Amino acid sequence: MNKFFEAKSIAVVGVSRNKDKVGHIIFSQLLRGFKGEIYGINPNLNELYGNKIYKDLPSLNRKIDLVVIAIPAPLVIDIIRELPSVQCKNVVIISAGFKEIGNEKLELELKKEIEKRNIKAIGVNCLGIYDSFSGIDAIFLPSDRVHRPKKGKISFVCQSGAIGGAVLDLMASKGYGINKFISYGNATSLDETDFIDYLGKDKDTKVICVYVEGIKDGRKFLEVCKKIKKPIVILKGGLTAEGNKAALSHTGALAGDPRVYIGAFKQANLVYAESIEDLFNYARLLEKSLAPKGDNIQIITNGGGFGIISTDSIINNDLSMAELSQKTRKELRETFPKLVIVDNPMDLIGDATDERYDIALDRCASDKNIDVILVVLDFQTPLLTPRIVDVISKYKDKKPVILVATGGEPTEKIKRIIESKGIVCFDYPETAVRSIKRLVDYYNKI
Amino acid sequence: MNKFFEAKSIAVVGVSRNKDKVGHIIFSQLLRGFKGEIYGINPNLNELYGNKIYKDLPSLNRKIDLVVIAIPAPLVIDIIRELPSVQCKNVVIISAGFKEIGNEKLELELKKEIEKRNIKAIGVNCLGIYDSFSGIDAIFLPSDRVHRPKKGKISFVCQSGAIGGAVLDLMASKGYGINKFISYGNATSLDETDFIDYLGKDKDTKVICVYVEGIKDGRKFLEVCKKIKKPIVILKGGLTAEGNKAALSHTGALAGDPRVYIGAFKQANLVYAESIEDLFNYARLLEKSLAPKGDNIQIITNGGGFGIISTDSIINNDLSMAELSQKTRKELRETFPKLVIVDNPMDLIGDATDERYDIALDRCASDKNIDVILVVLDFQTPLLTPRIVDVISKYKDKKPVILVATGGEPTEKIKRIIESKGIVCFDYPETAVRSIKRLVDYYNKI
Repeated sequence: MNKFFEAKSIAVVGVSRNKDKVGHIIFSQLLRGFKGEIYGINPNLNELYGNKIYKDLPSLNRKIDLVVIAIPAPLVIDIIRELPSVQCKNVVIISAGFKEIGNEKLELELKKEIEKRNIKAIGVNCLGIYDSFSGIDAIFLPSDRVHRPKKGKISFVCQSGAIGGAVLDLMASKGYGINKFISYGNATSLDETDFIDYLGKDKDTKVICVYVEGIKDGRKFLEVCKKIKKPIVILKGGLTAEGNKAALSHTGALAGDPRVYIGAFKQANLVYAESIEDLFNYARLLEKSLAPKGDNIQIITNGGGFGIISTDSIINNDLSMAELSQKTRKELRETFPKLVIVDNPMDLIGDATDERYDIALDRCASDKNIDVILVVLDFQTPLLTPRIVDVISKYKDKKPVILVATGGEPTEKIKRIIESKGIVCFDYPETAVRSIKRLVDYYNKI
Repeated sequence: MNKFFEAKSIAVVGVSRNKDKVGHIIFSQLLRGFKGEIYGINPNLNELYGNKIYKDLPSLNRKIDLVVIAIPAPLVIDIIRELPSVQCKNVVIISAGFKEIGNEKLELELKKEIEKRNIKAIGVNCLGIYDSFSGIDAIFLPSDRVHRPKKGKISFVCQSGAIGGAVLDLMASKGYGINKFISYGNATSLDETDFIDYLGKDKDTKVICVYVEGIKDGRKFLEVCKKIKKPIVILKGGLTAEGNKAALSHTGALAGDPRVYIGAFKQANLVYAESIEDLFNYARLLEKSLAPKGDNIQIITNGGGFGIISTDSIINNDLSMAELSQKTRKELRETFPKLVIVDNPMDLIGDATDERYDIALDRCASDKNIDVILVVLDFQTPLLTPRIVDVISKYKDKKPVILVATGGEPTEKIKRIIESKGIVCFDYPETAVRSIKRLVDYYNKI
């Protein structure tokens, strides 16, 4: 499957002068970022942006690593038949109009043609693929509408194009990184299991993120997932009977009983997400954090109310409140002003400085009673400065240190700096704690 | 209690040259936005920003509507004794250092002095108060760190200063409006029930939002809440035993059994929020939306995956999927291209235009089978334009129309325009549906 992401030559079948057309978007995106050879195919076009456009694949007269197909459904099969002329075994089929609108027969015929020729096909009815490292950008959403995330270690397998596009754009604007993105729609030939299997072996992928509507072969899926020694975060669309019905009409996917799914996911140590937001919250924490040794969480904050809310969340998520060692307690009590609460939550109170956080983090990082440090920063207070980011950076490789900062634009500004240093910073304590729960559970099971 | 928010003259006791000091921040904030008379008190200061500073309250020699106290705890009581000299009955006591650090005795003494003189006091150990209409900004967080929200109809009663400050800043940066904000800390004299009672009668407040750690008099609280005919959204910090312990050391509040609290809240038709995020999500939906007639939700989207996720959420939240009437179904089927799915969810698919949304909304707005319309916009698709905002505005006064748009900066830009038209737009389908559930439940019970 490497050829999809390491292709040196790509042909786009169905380029067009019309800027709204899929073929046009993909062709021009590739021209912008891809360093290899790019060829456009359209029998009715001679030239686009100064590039010769070819009438069909055979007329290219050369070997092509990857063909992207964006033409009406009934014509796709002809292109599959032409693939040997360019010695190509890898295709991405963007084209819609197959079983998702009732054209089961056409899709079956296509599937047969693909498998007979031993071709690896992504799609049909999909958004395409993206690789932040190789510059292969074969996603049909224009980059002014969907910003592309920077380089990172999360790879994303996504059955729905809409959710895939939205998550890409969100990740980009929040400054999170991605590695590979695969939108696979109807899963006509290759399916979720194939992609997960591939990403499990891909050394550049640290976390696999999956949005799936119907799993083709449940047994194979779970077997493959169980063998993979990296976190797989999964959101399943169509878990309810009603959602399932909608999924059926969407990508023609068949779904099963929700309880069976969730139970099986847990058995295979998949990290199950209950919302789009959590899907990528869990993924980014699993990408960045160290593995926690246990579930004892220490809260450090300078806003009392945040300490209380975080405590409630820790208990509600079946995590444990760490118990400060006598040594830590004594040292901090002697160092800090009387109003500071040396306990869990530790309340450094409203006049906390960067230095006070430094002292608290230093002691907590070396306290063996603590497995995870949850730092809830209240940036609305007057004495914290952007230097707090450097303070926290000092400890992030000693123990999992997870941040929360709730607030508007002034807070968002500092959050972007924090994230740029490789520290995960959540918007709300409740989201952070829910994510920590998944982190702790994942590492306690493997 | 009107005097707090309609004061024409305010004295700040404890002004200072030091910009980080509470007295300085409040005094300069008032100078900036408050149209009435402002006086500063400090025996060691003659002048600040060209304003004469007085040595004590008696030397003012005039009637004062509101006194804000920001001096060390042991000195507060003397100021209370001086209040008759300015005929003042309303004070906000910012000062900390009372029962929250074990000084029970000092607080009790202060309480007696306040009540003996029939004074209305907010605090101690609080952030202050804010009124977006009268310009009374007596919050001690500088406005470059905590932006102030625009004018609106949500009033917020908040025991925690940290959470209050964060939510204000969040509301400001998301473009949501506020009416009155009351941070009340230890509730030495006036407590949550007094504030809620007042806001219940306040004609400018449409929704009351409450963050509370300990409720002083549960029976009185519930009685007052039950009588109020406007939505009250509540988040209770310290619901777990561990969180309760932390709350005790924070504002000295005593808390009770979580199940008892939640049960009682529901009985009094309070809208119970489980997180900071939901507290203000519920409040802003209740502020803006029409009352739904029932719980039949129709999803309209142009991203299939979003339709599925939204369906799952509707079912998981015990809401009902609306069943399109035969008339709507027939009309839309005849109008729309074959690939559009005329059902629930209604999938206008990736090439949806503003006009296609217009047609769908028009029919759904007049379909009696539908109580609430959930529009999930996929702005990553090429044919939607900012004009969609005007399309949606046409229907928002006919039926509750709630929007969702998931994405990064390009999507955020359009969301801000949507919100400025008085339409609520959520970030994720799951958040939207959870909020709709609260909206439906609230109006079904009154």
